[in-house]
This record gives sequence, C-alpha cells and structure tokens, in this order.
Amino acid sequence: MFSGTNLPRIGTYNVNVVLSSIQAAEGISRVEIAQQTGLTAQTVSVIVRRLMENGIVQESGSIPSSGGKPRKALRINPKAAYAVGIHFDPTAMSIVVVDMSGQELDHSHHELSPALDPEALIEEAAEVAHKLLANAGIPRKRVLGVGAACPGPIDQSQGLVTSPPRNDRWTEVPIKRLLRRHIGFDVIIDNDANAAAIGERWSGQARSVPDFAYLYLGTGIGGAIFLSNNIYRGVSLNAGEFGHIVVQPNGAPCYCGNRGCLEAMCSSSAITKNVHAELALGRASTLRKLYQQDPTLVDHAAICLAAVKHDEISRRAIDRVAEYLADCAVTIANALDVELLVIGGRGVLQVGDIYKDKVTESLQSRPLARKTHTMRVAISEMGNNCAALGAAALVLHAKYAPNTAHLLSA
Amino acid sequence: MFSGTNLPRIGTYNVNVVLSSIQAAEGISRVEIAQQTGLTAQTVSVIVRRLMENGIVQESGSIPSSGGKPRKALRINPKAAYAVGIHFDPTAMSIVVVDMSGQELDHSHHELSPALDPEALIEEAAEVAHKLLANAGIPRKRVLGVGAACPGPIDQSQGLVTSPPRNDRWTEVPIKRLLRRHIGFDVIIDNDANAAAIGERWSGQARSVPDFAYLYLGTGIGGAIFLSNNIYRGVSLNAGEFGHIVVQPNGAPCYCGNRGCLEAMCSSSAITKNVHAELALGRASTLRKLYQQDPTLVDHAAICLAAVKHDEISRRAIDRVAEYLADCAVTIANALDVELLVIGGRGVLQVGDIYKDKVTESLQSRPLARKTHTMRVAISEMGNNCAALGAAALVLHAKYAPNTAHLLSA
Repeated sequence: MFSGTNLPRIGTYNVNVVLSSIQAAEGISRVEIAQQTGLTAQTVSVIVRRLMENGIVQESGSIPSSGGKPRKALRINPKAAYAVGIHFDPTAMSIVVVDMSGQELDHSHHELSPALDPEALIEEAAEVAHKLLANAGIPRKRVLGVGAACPGPIDQSQGLVTSPPRNDRWTEVPIKRLLRRHIGFDVIIDNDANAAAIGERWSGQARSVPDFAYLYLGTGIGGAIFLSNNIYRGVSLNAGEFGHIVVQPNGAPCYCGNRGCLEAMCSSSAITKNVHAELALGRASTLRKLYQQDPTLVDHAAICLAAVKHDEISRRAIDRVAEYLADCAVTIANALDVELLVIGGRGVLQVGDIYKDKVTESLQSRPLARKTHTMRVAISEMGNNCAALGAAALVLHAKYAPNTAHLLSA
Repeated sequence: MFSGTNLPRIGTYNVNVVLSSIQAAEGISRVEIAQQTGLTAQTVSVIVRRLMENGIVQESGSIPSSGGKPRKALRINPKAAYAVGIHFDPTAMSIVVVDMSGQELDHSHHELSPALDPEALIEEAAEVAHKLLANAGIPRKRVLGVGAACPGPIDQSQGLVTSPPRNDRWTEVPIKRLLRRHIGFDVIIDNDANAAAIGERWSGQARSVPDFAYLYLGTGIGGAIFLSNNIYRGVSLNAGEFGHIVVQPNGAPCYCGNRGCLEAMCSSSAITKNVHAELALGRASTLRKLYQQDPTLVDHAAICLAAVKHDEISRRAIDRVAEYLADCAVTIANALDVELLVIGGRGVLQVGDIYKDKVTESLQSRPLARKTHTMRVAISEMGNNCAALGAAALVLHAKYAPNTAHLLSA
C-alpha cells in the first residue's frame, strides 16, 4: 500500500523533469529550468549536457536576460526520435507518424468493414506504418515505438481489449502481441480517450497543463483525467468514464445497463436517431431531400454541417447535446476542480464552437467554486486524427514524462 | 510545473512510509514492512529503531513466521502523542482529544447560538480543549497540535474561511491565527468534509484504503477525494464538491446558483421541508401530533427516527434521498473508480443502513466497469463527532502520512 523510494529512481525522474520543462516551453534557459523545478543549477547543467549528447535536446536561439548576456534557448530536437500511432475504431483505422515534438509528419485513414478479421487488420496496420515511415525517410533505429489506441476497457498488462462495448470481434484479441510481431517495434496500448488526452497534453490544447479532464466524442463517449502530469487511471483502470454520467435521470437506456447516460443522450448515433425521428415526422429541414433519397446519407457529419448552417432541427439536436455536455462539465468542475476541460474526437468537427460556448457559459455560472476558479474549456484541434496522434504520444509520454509513481519502489 | 527531488526528502518520506505501514496494520513485522514497501530490510530496521527510540513505535506480541521463529509485532504506541480536534459548525461546536492511534479519549459538544461572536467562540473552544486535556492527564509536550474543521471553502495559507455559504459571520475570520493565540498549540485548518475523510482514513471505515471518496452529510453536503493516501484538493482546492452534482436537472434551486444539486435535494433542511409539506397537507403520519404541537420539533433527527420506525411519509422522503445518493455514487464510481465510498456526517445517524442498501444496489448494477470492479460503500461509525475526530486526525496525518508531494522540491 505504501511504497518507499531510492536514489537511482530519483536520477531518472529528474532527467524527465528537465526534459518535460523543455518540451512544455517555447525555448527555455538552464537558469529558468532550475527556477521552475527547484533543482540546483549544477544538476540541471549535468542533465542538459547528457540530453544534448544524446541528441534529444538542442540549443537554438537565445533568451534575453535582465542585466547579463542572453542565455541559450534549449529546445527539444524534433528529429531525435519518432513514434507511430494507430487508432483502431469499430468503423475506421487511422495511422500517423509523429516526430519527438508530437508533430504529425504523415497519416493514413482507412474506412473499415466491421466484418474484417482483427489479425488481418493488425497486419495491414503494420504494413501501412512501415510505408509511412519509409516515405518520411525515418531510419528504423530512430523509431521509439508504436502506440495503439482502441475503445476500452483495455487490459494493459495483457495488451488486449476486454469486452469492447461495440465490437465483439475484438474481445480478448492480443493486440499488443500481434502488433508487436507484425510491426517489429515495442507497442504500448491504451484506450482511445486516454490516448487522445495524452496527445493533447503532449502537443495540443493541454500542453503544459498538469491537471485537466478530457471528454472524447468518438463512436461512443469516453473520458480521461490528467492529474499532476499523468493519466489518473483509478483502482481498476476505469476512471474518467464521463460518458456514463447520468445527465437525464430515467432517460434513454444505455448499453451499459444504466439510463440517461451522457453517451446514451449525446453519442453520434443518438444525435442521428433524434434528427431522423424529426425528419420521419415530416418536419421542415434542409436535410429533408437527402433523407427522402436515402436516410443513411443523413449521418452525424451531415447533421453537424446542417446545424452550423442554421437547419433548425439539426441545430436544436446539437444545442440539446451542448446542454448535456455543459451539465457533465459542471459535474467535472465540482468533483475534480481541474484547470481545463478539453473536448475532442470526431464529434466536435463543425460543432465545436457551439459546444464550447454553451459549456463555457455553464462553467461561468454554475459550479460552486466558480468565483475562486473557473475551469476553462477548449476544443481539440486535432480533428479526426486525435486518437491516432494520441496513440503516438503514448510512446513519447511513457518514455519522457516524469511520473512520481516511478519514484516508488513497490 | 515540474518539480525535481533530492536525497533528504527521501529520508523523511521513507520514515513516514514505514510509520504508515505500522499504523495501518494490527501488528506487523519488520520483514512484512520490507515486503510491502519495497524498502530493504536494513533500511526498515534503521527506521524502526529510530521510531522506537522516539517512543512512537513499540514491540508488542509476536507474529507467527513460516519455518523460523515468531517475529516481533510492531505497533503504534498510542500514548506517544495526542491531538485535539475542533469542529465549528453553524449550529454546534464539537471538541475531541485523541491519542496517536486516532482513538477518542474525551469529547465535548456545544449547541450554539448563531449570534455568537466567532472570536468569543474560538476562545471558548480553547478553554474547553485545555480542560479536556487536563482531565485526560495529557502533558502539554505530548500534544502534537490542534486541528480545526469548518464548513468550506477554506483558504489554508491564510487559515480562514472564505465566504462560508451558510454562516456570514465567519467570513474571513482568521480562525487559525486566533485559535493559535488562544490555545497555544500549532493549528491546522481544513474543511469539514476533508477533515472527516482524513478521520475515516486514520481510524475509521477507510483505514488502510489508499483511494476512496467521502460524502459528508452535515448541515450542507460536502465531499472529499483520497488518492494515493492523500486528499486530492484540485487546482483551486475545491475538488470533491459532490454536494453540487446535479441529480435532478432543473430541480430545486441551490444556494450555489445551480439547480437540482444533491445538496438542494438531500440536505437535512431539504428533507425537513419535504416532510413538513406533506404534514401540512394533513397526510397520515406518526409525526402528525408532534407537528401540530410545534412544527420545529419535527426536525431532521425526528424524521430519520420515524423513517426507521416505518412512518410512511418519513420513509418515503429518506428513500428518495437514498436514490439521489445512489445516483451520485454511480457518478463517483464512473468518474473516479476508487475502492470505496464512505458516507458520514450526522445525516447518516439512524438512516445509514437505508442509504447503504440503496447505494450498494446501484453500485452493483449501474456503473460501466462494475463487472471489473464494484466500488464498496461504508457508513461512518463516528457519528456526530466525525468532523471533530477528523480535525484531530488532520494533525496526525500531516505529521505522519507519506506524501509524494513532499518528495518534490518546488
């Protein structure tokens, strides 16, 4: 229950503390690192020298200093290392290659037939990844590893998905082992929401924010919690399931067995179902023709586009979702009191600003401690690739982020 | 944002790791401590020797060992140190004296006139505390300090309550400084829910549970979150405000400015109001005579007693509260995935089992990950004194609990 610590663990921890300070800044001096971290100037100097010898950190430009001569600016060398990110979703697969700073160098997106065999898909993912790496001219030895994001719940120790709610074929498929075999690099696996959150932390809206919550609007609705610079996972690794917070007591049944969950009311399929119901009643809508032609053409993307173009029933459906998201955000603020809520996933495409405005308004007027601290909200700018970019960030994060848990020996 | 660590910090941390292992166990050997903590046998041995020299730990009894000779059992010496806990509530003040194990030695409870001047009350608290210490024969030098619990939000750095929602006279009263002056010991101040949670962690339902949530049913409804053996406070120190989770969208207005909050629906005054409304309609009830005699006699305590004695309208009101508490518990399970939820405060007196049954049923059937892990629920057994006992535990916890935050230098 309680774990002690020891000297070697401190060394690695402090290296990652310095590295993270550099990664979070747009150029930072040794003196500033020492001030920020509480480490001595000498310790910082020794660590920076080692990071520069390994090519991970470089000096580039300078920082004005009051009185003295300008100090050299330290930055991450983006070409020091690369990572691959793969997002397996029930309906699509996305693959990205990123550099050490988390910037995307190339990506590939594949719509999937749900009938596809998981192992065949994993093999295809490996082939595509090797092609992307070759196209970008990245040597094998510079690849730190591969991150894979899947709809949870994930068993990280076994590297597989346990009972995925929407995709039975993936139940207990040993993704990590199969992917490792086909791709030839180390593999880290995590659920899509956690991965996307780590992506935001590494190079998105939550860069340099140690404590934030993340709401992932994908096929379902997932979430993640970042505390003290690391994912908070909970005792059974199932924390942050904000999609199953009840926003409408006795509302629509959810596959989880509960009723009125955020996911049951606000998933892309719930939105589509609501708008289809209105269209079936013959309500006026710019989507009416398309619906008469083929209802399946009126999908979530079409509805979101119509909503921002002032189609009344689409806009009403999205506004209702915005209100439920706001209710959930208020609960997150009251319970977790974090700095920031990031909302991402393909569900925010087109309608992100509608969600942001409503959530912001609620966070300014409803949480108990809003006068002491108002939780900010940001919409992910990573678009459709957020979980794949996050999957790649899993690799960078695992290697370079300071983790107090690693200070402890048991 | 990132903080480094160093060697002296490790020393203190490891001492507290060993001490906490002993405190959490009912007798533990040096070998078991080493196994649990990952510290070397030699490190454990050196630390235990120091703790025994200081009189904090003692050998008492033995633990059977497979094969070898029985090992000596280490226990906290309850007489090594003492602490005072004071709970200031809008309507009452409770004061306790506890020993090093968190056991209550004496207590004193005072109903208050709301008109009482805060400084006069603080002076009275100091007098009562000295009387209790003298009666228990505790020498001054054995008193570690005084803990004070107040309805939040607390500014710990200044040691005062900022804008207490239900008690204007206490706004910005420098409680910590005044209490220190009158009582002559070091003072720690925290909100009532955090204090009560630390009390449960130190000697109640959450003993040896590193991750749990706490729901405090006092005058209002507060909450606390324990993660990795420490209170999680949030960026503005306002985390765990479960009382303001919305359980009834557009429900009764709450003083916080939101509607349908758990507190608005379930506080003792909300329960009383609901039952009074039914009695005013002339509904059959065992409380009817009392109500006709004087409505103020039908208070929260009377209603809870009537509910367990099968008065229909009282039972219905309590059952409704149980359902809202269950909704909140499901949200806590989905969001935080902790081991345990403890429900405490004077609001659980009499009706704790009703709440426990309903919450348990919901936790077994509604959270997403319930098949992987079912969050347990426990009702505090500390009764009316829980916040005062918790306030005393603040002192023990601050001194003896390992805190990874203390490993960090900035």
